[in-house]
Amino acid sequence: MRPAKSRPLNTEYWLGLDLGGTSIKAVAVTAGGQKLRQRSVPFVDRDMEWAKKIRTLVRAWRRELGGPAGIGLSAPGLAAKDARSIAVMPGRLLGLERLDWTDYLAAPCPVPVLNDAHAALLGEVWRGAARGLRDVMLFTLGTGVGGAAMVDGHLLRGAIGRAGHLGHITVDWDGPRDDFNTPGSLEHFMGNKFIRERTRGRFASTHELVAAAGNGDPAAKAVWDRSVRALGCSIGSLINVLDSDAVIIGGGIARAGDALFAPLERYVRHYEWQAGGHQAKILRAELGDYAGAYGSAANALGFNPAKPTRIPAL
Amino acid sequence: MRPAKSRPLNTEYWLGLDLGGTSIKAVAVTAGGQKLRQRSVPFVDRDMEWAKKIRTLVRAWRRELGGPAGIGLSAPGLAAKDARSIAVMPGRLLGLERLDWTDYLAAPCPVPVLNDAHAALLGEVWRGAARGLRDVMLFTLGTGVGGAAMVDGHLLRGAIGRAGHLGHITVDWDGPRDDFNTPGSLEHFMGNKFIRERTRGRFASTHELVAAAGNGDPAAKAVWDRSVRALGCSIGSLINVLDSDAVIIGGGIARAGDALFAPLERYVRHYEWQAGGHQAKILRAELGDYAGAYGSAANALGFNPAKPTRIPAL
Repeated sequence: MRPAKSRPLNTEYWLGLDLGGTSIKAVAVTAGGQKLRQRSVPFVDRDMEWAKKIRTLVRAWRRELGGPAGIGLSAPGLAAKDARSIAVMPGRLLGLERLDWTDYLAAPCPVPVLNDAHAALLGEVWRGAARGLRDVMLFTLGTGVGGAAMVDGHLLRGAIGRAGHLGHITVDWDGPRDDFNTPGSLEHFMGNKFIRERTRGRFASTHELVAAAGNGDPAAKAVWDRSVRALGCSIGSLINVLDSDAVIIGGGIARAGDALFAPLERYVRHYEWQAGGHQAKILRAELGDYAGAYGSAANALGFNPAKPTRIPAL
Repeated sequence: MRPAKSRPLNTEYWLGLDLGGTSIKAVAVTAGGQKLRQRSVPFVDRDMEWAKKIRTLVRAWRRELGGPAGIGLSAPGLAAKDARSIAVMPGRLLGLERLDWTDYLAAPCPVPVLNDAHAALLGEVWRGAARGLRDVMLFTLGTGVGGAAMVDGHLLRGAIGRAGHLGHITVDWDGPRDDFNTPGSLEHFMGNKFIRERTRGRFASTHELVAAAGNGDPAAKAVWDRSVRALGCSIGSLINVLDSDAVIIGGGIARAGDALFAPLERYVRHYEWQAGGHQAKILRAELGDYAGAYGSAANALGFNPAKPTRIPAL
């Protein structure tokens, strides 16, 4: 029998799980956010392989680290009101809808389930780019444009768990409607899935587009400028709705770095209502692919920025 | 000495005050929402006449009804984090900024101060159109377009108290920037203050515009249709951000009745992401000019829909 190295330390830890499209991310962290272990487990989306791999991982860590003080999980789709499952996730991860994770993992305490973008934001507020903040929005720029929002320290969930779909707000009401019926949405202008449409087939990825723009290609520059302007304009609108202190930008397209953040800063300042001189900070996501796993752990341990130690006067 | 009629009943009541642009609305209500008294007091905006009139009214009701169990107040502008004053209100109601209402009214308990639109939404959720709901947005269609939002029973305030400025989101990013730097905003398309600009000077009010549209004037019909479409499109966007169960429409322009609500319903259904068949209800505001006063009373008595008796499963 292999000795369980960490068990003698008897460190209390929380297990955060994030189910993605092609891999499972897991972290074991202390209440203070110290990382004891992390792991990425790839899977193929058939026969609920992802579920079995999660169960195997949890069992392995239980043996190696001792039982966790709590387990949290995040996944794509809309979380159920009772937070025991993902209620709605059509089209992929067959078997995920209504799978009760507390039962499935035979957990002694309830396993709270969050939408993946909600978890990523909670993770970034707990241990990432927005530590200590309470009014934050997150954009994930990738195939589509995902998002999440926290206001007054409260993570917005909404009537059916779909709050924070920030990519699906209108920028140009004469534009085509996206999958969510939103005309000319931010996702239409920024999402990688529309890059061929936006560039008349010239580019297959935003990465190529940004590289060409950086090399001075005028058409590429114009398209990329519209993408960034659409994001800046959307942030301006949403500041009026959500009154954020900070905006976190993550996802693959955020790897464009200054080619994104420098013009974005200018557009946000242009469109932002700077009441009393207030400017929202534009921050780069810090936790990368593990943001959701951190957020799931934070959720399991009851991290809640809505309960501050004190409320400072304005 | 005049007998204080209601004092012998010794009914516990809360006093809600709403400071508007030209009048003060006041209600005395029980914890169950029963109205004991209401009053509207006009004022002229000079020498803090509004403050003196509020103090006089509070003193009079104290004499007549006995001391209230609590007092709440709402006013235009951004409420301070400590909720003791309006922190930011440039341009009018000189003297309002940072006036500490607990001190000014010599109240034995703190007088919580809310932004007027926030209060109106809280009032409508407590005793008006959205009773029992937790995910609601409010639009007030008048000179400008005001708003407020509640998500998961939590009234959104934000970093500096400006959350819920729903009139200042972009519909057409090529449109002119409004007072909040928002290009082609909902307010630009719907606010009464832009009616001359939108109709090339033909109409002086939305009321006239809607009347002409009702009489078949093609140009008026086209302009009004764009107004309603802008609102429907904005609601569609915001449902993705706030995930509302219901949208309350109030303000002077809402008096257009079916000329507004019938086409609005169609546009919302067209632009709405109906996840799992979910449709947001479009509701007419019920408390009219007294919504803010009711909301202020609700705020004083600690009404908080975020603390439900039970959370139903999805």
